Amino acid sequence: MSLLSGVNSPDDLKKLSIEEIETLAGELREDLIEVVNRNGGHLASPLGVVELTLALHYVYEVGPGKDQLIWDVGHQCYAHKLLTGRRDIFPQLRKKNGISGYPKISESEYDCFGTGHSSTSISAAAGMAAAWKQQGLDNHVVAVIGDGAMTAGMAFEAMSHAGHLGLDMLVILNDNEMSISPNVGALSNYFSRLITASPYKRAKEDVGSFVKKLIGEEMTRHVQHIERQVKGMITPGTLFQELGFNYIGPVDGHDLPLMIECLTNLRSMHGPLLLHCVTEKGKGLKAAEEDPLKYHGVSPAAVKAIDEEGDALPSKEEQKQKPKAKSFTDAFVEGMIEAAERDERVVGITAAMPTGTGLSKLEEVYPERFFDVGICEQHAVTFAAGLATQGLKPVAAIYSTFLQRGYDQLIHDVAIQKLPVVFAIDRAGLVGEDSPTQNGTFDISFLRCVPDLVVTAPRDDVDTKLMLHWALQQDGPVAFRYARGSAPTIGAEDNRDVTRGEMLREGDDATFLCVGPVAAAALEAAEALAAEGLSVGVADARFIKPLDGALLDKLIDRPIITVEENTLDGGFGSAVIEYFQLRDRLRDLRIHRVGVPDVFSEQATRGEQLAEHDLHAEGLARRAKAFLLAGSEAAQV
Amino acid sequence: MSLLSGVNSPDDLKKLSIEEIETLAGELREDLIEVVNRNGGHLASPLGVVELTLALHYVYEVGPGKDQLIWDVGHQCYAHKLLTGRRDIFPQLRKKNGISGYPKISESEYDCFGTGHSSTSISAAAGMAAAWKQQGLDNHVVAVIGDGAMTAGMAFEAMSHAGHLGLDMLVILNDNEMSISPNVGALSNYFSRLITASPYKRAKEDVGSFVKKLIGEEMTRHVQHIERQVKGMITPGTLFQELGFNYIGPVDGHDLPLMIECLTNLRSMHGPLLLHCVTEKGKGLKAAEEDPLKYHGVSPAAVKAIDEEGDALPSKEEQKQKPKAKSFTDAFVEGMIEAAERDERVVGITAAMPTGTGLSKLEEVYPERFFDVGICEQHAVTFAAGLATQGLKPVAAIYSTFLQRGYDQLIHDVAIQKLPVVFAIDRAGLVGEDSPTQNGTFDISFLRCVPDLVVTAPRDDVDTKLMLHWALQQDGPVAFRYARGSAPTIGAEDNRDVTRGEMLREGDDATFLCVGPVAAAALEAAEALAAEGLSVGVADARFIKPLDGALLDKLIDRPIITVEENTLDGGFGSAVIEYFQLRDRLRDLRIHRVGVPDVFSEQATRGEQLAEHDLHAEGLARRAKAFLLAGSEAAQV
Repeated sequence: MSLLSGVNSPDDLKKLSIEEIETLAGELREDLIEVVNRNGGHLASPLGVVELTLALHYVYEVGPGKDQLIWDVGHQCYAHKLLTGRRDIFPQLRKKNGISGYPKISESEYDCFGTGHSSTSISAAAGMAAAWKQQGLDNHVVAVIGDGAMTAGMAFEAMSHAGHLGLDMLVILNDNEMSISPNVGALSNYFSRLITASPYKRAKEDVGSFVKKLIGEEMTRHVQHIERQVKGMITPGTLFQELGFNYIGPVDGHDLPLMIECLTNLRSMHGPLLLHCVTEKGKGLKAAEEDPLKYHGVSPAAVKAIDEEGDALPSKEEQKQKPKAKSFTDAFVEGMIEAAERDERVVGITAAMPTGTGLSKLEEVYPERFFDVGICEQHAVTFAAGLATQGLKPVAAIYSTFLQRGYDQLIHDVAIQKLPVVFAIDRAGLVGEDSPTQNGTFDISFLRCVPDLVVTAPRDDVDTKLMLHWALQQDGPVAFRYARGSAPTIGAEDNRDVTRGEMLREGDDATFLCVGPVAAAALEAAEALAAEGLSVGVADARFIKPLDGALLDKLIDRPIITVEENTLDGGFGSAVIEYFQLRDRLRDLRIHRVGVPDVFSEQATRGEQLAEHDLHAEGLARRAKAFLLAGSEAAQV
Repeated sequence: MSLLSGVNSPDDLKKLSIEEIETLAGELREDLIEVVNRNGGHLASPLGVVELTLALHYVYEVGPGKDQLIWDVGHQCYAHKLLTGRRDIFPQLRKKNGISGYPKISESEYDCFGTGHSSTSISAAAGMAAAWKQQGLDNHVVAVIGDGAMTAGMAFEAMSHAGHLGLDMLVILNDNEMSISPNVGALSNYFSRLITASPYKRAKEDVGSFVKKLIGEEMTRHVQHIERQVKGMITPGTLFQELGFNYIGPVDGHDLPLMIECLTNLRSMHGPLLLHCVTEKGKGLKAAEEDPLKYHGVSPAAVKAIDEEGDALPSKEEQKQKPKAKSFTDAFVEGMIEAAERDERVVGITAAMPTGTGLSKLEEVYPERFFDVGICEQHAVTFAAGLATQGLKPVAAIYSTFLQRGYDQLIHDVAIQKLPVVFAIDRAGLVGEDSPTQNGTFDISFLRCVPDLVVTAPRDDVDTKLMLHWALQQDGPVAFRYARGSAPTIGAEDNRDVTRGEMLREGDDATFLCVGPVAAAALEAAEALAAEGLSVGVADARFIKPLDGALLDKLIDRPIITVEENTLDGGFGSAVIEYFQLRDRLRDLRIHRVGVPDVFSEQATRGEQLAEHDLHAEGLARRAKAFLLAGSEAAQV
């Protein structure tokens, strides 16, 4: 019988000996590999923090009203979940109604703060520490943050504030020399220097003995001061010390007895502390150890390569076996490379998602026209604006959910100045197994209120490339949003005019008015409805802002069912109604809107999520029928 | 005849002698004081950079296709405007159709990048430098950024990226030991240490001679390495050096010959450079020198005190003379102090706007329950979330336009987790003389799409306090938005129920359905319309999300005119239409929407801006009449 099976809460862990805990580390790794291999998700990152997780739960009193652990970005939390009463449901990792691949406040009292987007943990920890200070409590909070996440400005803001307040908190910099992709930014060079600490250590010792030899017992206060400065410099961690944190490290994050000793000491210390802990991603999985980028996570059924967000990449064999439908990302990057060939002003920008956005392929061809700015969406957008002022044609490829971080910059630096920046918004809509934190279901609403911004959505691979080329020819900013996953061609490939909407299927009784790839489901629904005697057309609006008025004016004579992979509140359907209201046509308008309701969509496969919101053929057919036969109200049910 | 009158472009400046340029500095200050005294705006900040501006234009070839200057936040740009052909229109500073108080790309070819929100300049400069690198151009870019703006995470992101790329660019840290309010954050301590550089300089010299004395000519490479480290530490600027920048300074920013020499040298250097330049805010204005916070800017007619954004504060005499209507900010902070008295869990958070948000008054009473996080909206929101997890009741008071920077955190850290954070959104709507960058006309659209967030708008002082108290009792997040300026009581003070909408005036022919203080204009319009025989009611919806359905259901029998100080795209009126569409009532709905159209509203007084968009009594009456008599279409005109 395994030791792990006896660990139902962190309390059980505390009864074990150090040797037993080391055995437990092995058992945890086996469980992690087995489940992730089956369900997909991240692997290298969770394997890297097994000892750290064990040491934290061994030393701290984690639980509600007691000590708190915050796992930045969240991928690292799997071992934490296994140790906090979720072992039995762990096989349901990333499944519908199963457990989340991220910490989740509603899932367990041991998850004190949900994460998913990077670099929030230090701010949250600072808030907790400040609250306890006010309440006179002496709980402890630990934020575990990777070296990649540390490059975001938000982490810097939080460190500076916590340092200023002198809050009692521990930040563990989990440094594995690479975040998702190898880090960029000067800060990563800084980390590299930190971890090669031995010369520093030697230098430090040299200076110490050197100073002592020189002045012996007569060491003056002045020289002591200098010595502190010297040590401060030679000890790695100056940057953190400048921000008000006491720096400790680097330490080997896989040395369990050392980690336990270290954390035990730190738990009794006060003020802002930073423990620099060096770990290996994928520790314990041979393949993962050899190629951590490839095994950042694994996809079901085999230890597959994935991208930064845990999406599986096709293996070489798969690529050979069946010509899988191109993804939107594939189409986008093909278009980027063509555009870059044609026009030397075209450049691509990503914020730490080179594989996920596909731009790593642009980098292969035109390395000097590719910019990875790190986990810095704010800077990415304004950097693009700066490029645009000097005549370049920047394309900022950012996931919908992460564009929320560059929202102010999109308004303030790009749209107000009417700068020709193209926003390629990947993962727009529902994202599947990932946490609700990663869904991209708000961008239509938060973008269509921005003046001078054009907002469009390609429905397939062909559109994606054509729209990118069109966008690059505009004088002002254009955002085009596309979904996660495949982008099979919908409708005719040739002679497309992507500057306006398009009728994909005529119908006498009503029209599905779609944006994005949901047009495929609408066509299928129309086919099914035809079999039942209902003639429903399908139109692709393509443009969300400005709307294609000529198309809309043609559709008003029949009932309209708008279809979008975005929240209904202020979304595309809402824009269509506004259009007709401004033209005083509400009286003539029969409209029903299908989209994501006003909730944070929970994890499931993307197909399950689409089905849940009736954004699949069956759902659309059912909703259309109910609407046409019984009115809008009935159709909601 | 003044020297300034002969300077029509930077070229004219270059013909002058250093002595003449020093005379010019005095003339510039006179012009600045005179115009700002009359028109309002910032004063201390522009006065502080007069010599710096002259030196930059003397040394660099500023203009389109040549060297570029970026003024972070923008307040500092007045002298730059006077030197770049805008002297004649400078008296129209901040006036309608006059010149902007901020750099503006559409205003002059010398303004290469608009600013208004802080900390964008380094990203923009990096973009320009990267573009030139690619194009093989050797133009120069200089970003001038204050010490306060340097505390924002975005500046850190940009430094790290530019340092990594080794771009040719100069960042001038304009350090006046205070940004708007005295800086917070450990970084400001760091700056304080930088500028008190003499002990460091002394220590540096000591160590130098000390090491030389010890090992004479036999200095080994190893010791040289240590010495470099020692010097690196003792020279101020380590933090910037860690980010890949070459640090130079500190230098006296008012020493014109020194600045010219310094910039001339820097212009020929490569790679990322940081010049640390110490200036005095309000230099040259005695009163301003003595109290720079008070004279950060001036309001018309007298050198008045202003807040962080340049809004005038009433003088003590004014406060005595007439009991001026309370502002929304006043009402909010009164409510905050009452709430804090009643409930010790209530705390207030501001991101560098203590005076502007009024929270400095909370600080006076409860210093330990007030947090100023610096120019760090991202951190502010997640810090509030952290506080909320531990049972405190955080109120984050953030201007609407700056909340755009914390948008992701509002969704990801607060709303998804349903944490009871209250967002007090000040300056929501049109903000008057400030640049279009500062308008808060998007928040209804970008907030109402967020699930689990309640969005409301008080119409006056009484509502503001009641709504704050109500918000503090909720289990989830509540955002309430209020306007810049006065909040005179509208309607009865007593027995208000702020948990629902309210009929303020009955009317048979139609209803103005308002959110926020526009209800006052609607009441006035209704009065005027009554005189013309039209009976128009006025309702205050109060809630934007969720809408008060009971009220709306009562209104549908008559035409509805929605009134909001927000963009119409996805705004409140749009939400009202969605409400009726979901209930299949579009056929019965006669609706017309008044609000901010789909443009970035240009500077003017707030009154002028409201009038421009028909958000004043006359405009509402006219729109209502046109709508009721001729249909919605005619009403737009």
